[in-house]
Amino acid sequence: MTEKEVRLFGSWASAFSLRVEWALKLKGIEYEFVNEDIPFNKSEELLRLNPVTKKIPVLVHNSKPLPESLVIIEYIDDTWTEGYLIMPKDPYEMAQARFWAKFAEDKCIPATFGVFLKEGEAQQKMLQEAREAFKTLEQALGSKNFFGGDQIGYLDLAIGWYAFWIPIYEEIESVSIVDNKNAPLLKAWFSKILDVDMIKTSLPPRDKVYEFSKHLQPHWRNASPLK
Amino acid sequence: MTEKEVRLFGSWASAFSLRVEWALKLKGIEYEFVNEDIPFNKSEELLRLNPVTKKIPVLVHNSKPLPESLVIIEYIDDTWTEGYLIMPKDPYEMAQARFWAKFAEDKCIPATFGVFLKEGEAQQKMLQEAREAFKTLEQALGSKNFFGGDQIGYLDLAIGWYAFWIPIYEEIESVSIVDNKNAPLLKAWFSKILDVDMIKTSLPPRDKVYEFSKHLQPHWRNASPLK
Repeated sequence: MTEKEVRLFGSWASAFSLRVEWALKLKGIEYEFVNEDIPFNKSEELLRLNPVTKKIPVLVHNSKPLPESLVIIEYIDDTWTEGYLIMPKDPYEMAQARFWAKFAEDKCIPATFGVFLKEGEAQQKMLQEAREAFKTLEQALGSKNFFGGDQIGYLDLAIGWYAFWIPIYEEIESVSIVDNKNAPLLKAWFSKILDVDMIKTSLPPRDKVYEFSKHLQPHWRNASPLK
Repeated sequence: MTEKEVRLFGSWASAFSLRVEWALKLKGIEYEFVNEDIPFNKSEELLRLNPVTKKIPVLVHNSKPLPESLVIIEYIDDTWTEGYLIMPKDPYEMAQARFWAKFAEDKCIPATFGVFLKEGEAQQKMLQEAREAFKTLEQALGSKNFFGGDQIGYLDLAIGWYAFWIPIYEEIESVSIVDNKNAPLLKAWFSKILDVDMIKTSLPPRDKVYEFSKHLQPHWRNASPLK
């Protein structure tokens, strides 16, 4: 049996591996998906492929491993240059997309996990931070349909999982992080991106993600989901 | 008086604006340097140019502002495509450089500031984390002279400031973070990169950086230098 040229070590429950799958699908790249049992039972092969951070996703292309989802997405766009363009072509727009992706990673994600994992006053503080961060992020969307313009691009792939996962966290915690009052453009984008066929058909079952998140919540309270 | 095409809002005391200056110098780009009085007295113009994170550095190119030092370095390489190549050409090597830069930002920098800002047992814990992180980072260097190979590249620019700033923090705190026993290749690279003419001639005076760091230490203990 020959190894497929492209393999992705990920997890059905991970938004970070899902965004890489989206990039592969946009490019029409065939790949083998290797599901890792995160966070407690990672395979020896994953730890061998990514000894530095030990995290999924890891893309293996022609036997060469590459970790870090956003780095992988750029690699995919740089390597399979035909077909769908993920990054903006214009250097300034490209830089803006990278800037906002970094802002989202630095501000929106920690605050969102903070809301999901903290309680009482600490949760309220994170909720305020999260709502401010999403309101700011919305500026990058402006009046466009997608962050990439008329079709989804790098930033949409980077943060597209918010549209699916945040409402789940909101439901579990009975809070509102992104709503029509606070970030109406972003909330409308949630609907638009979940309506893109490629996105819609690649999402894991909502009830399974809900159960998985609830199940991991006590563990994540001690060890951040980003570790 | 006409505005220069390229302006950099930075600070003589900031490693993050210095790495952008290095990229501009490698490309031979003329620029006007606008020194900001950080962290207490930032200009109205800076806050207007970067309302999102309010941080230096901000590159202004043809009146368009761009924050985030590593994003700016890639923008410079993508825009001025002639001359010195900062990013590796090969997509896999480029991705590796981005991966290690992210590792350095995520692991080496917070641990280093932890050593500089914490005390007692907490400092010892950060020291162990920092030493482990630098030992890991060293793997990206291997037997090469520079992370970029025979000449400095993206990763050298991203982390080159360690060679100048870390010994200053070590001296102030009487600790050893990067040394011949723990990370001999990285320590040797410290000497090599500080010996590159463009780097050597662009460093701020060591005694001024020493004083600035010591002066800001109590402030940073309450508000991280990354904020």
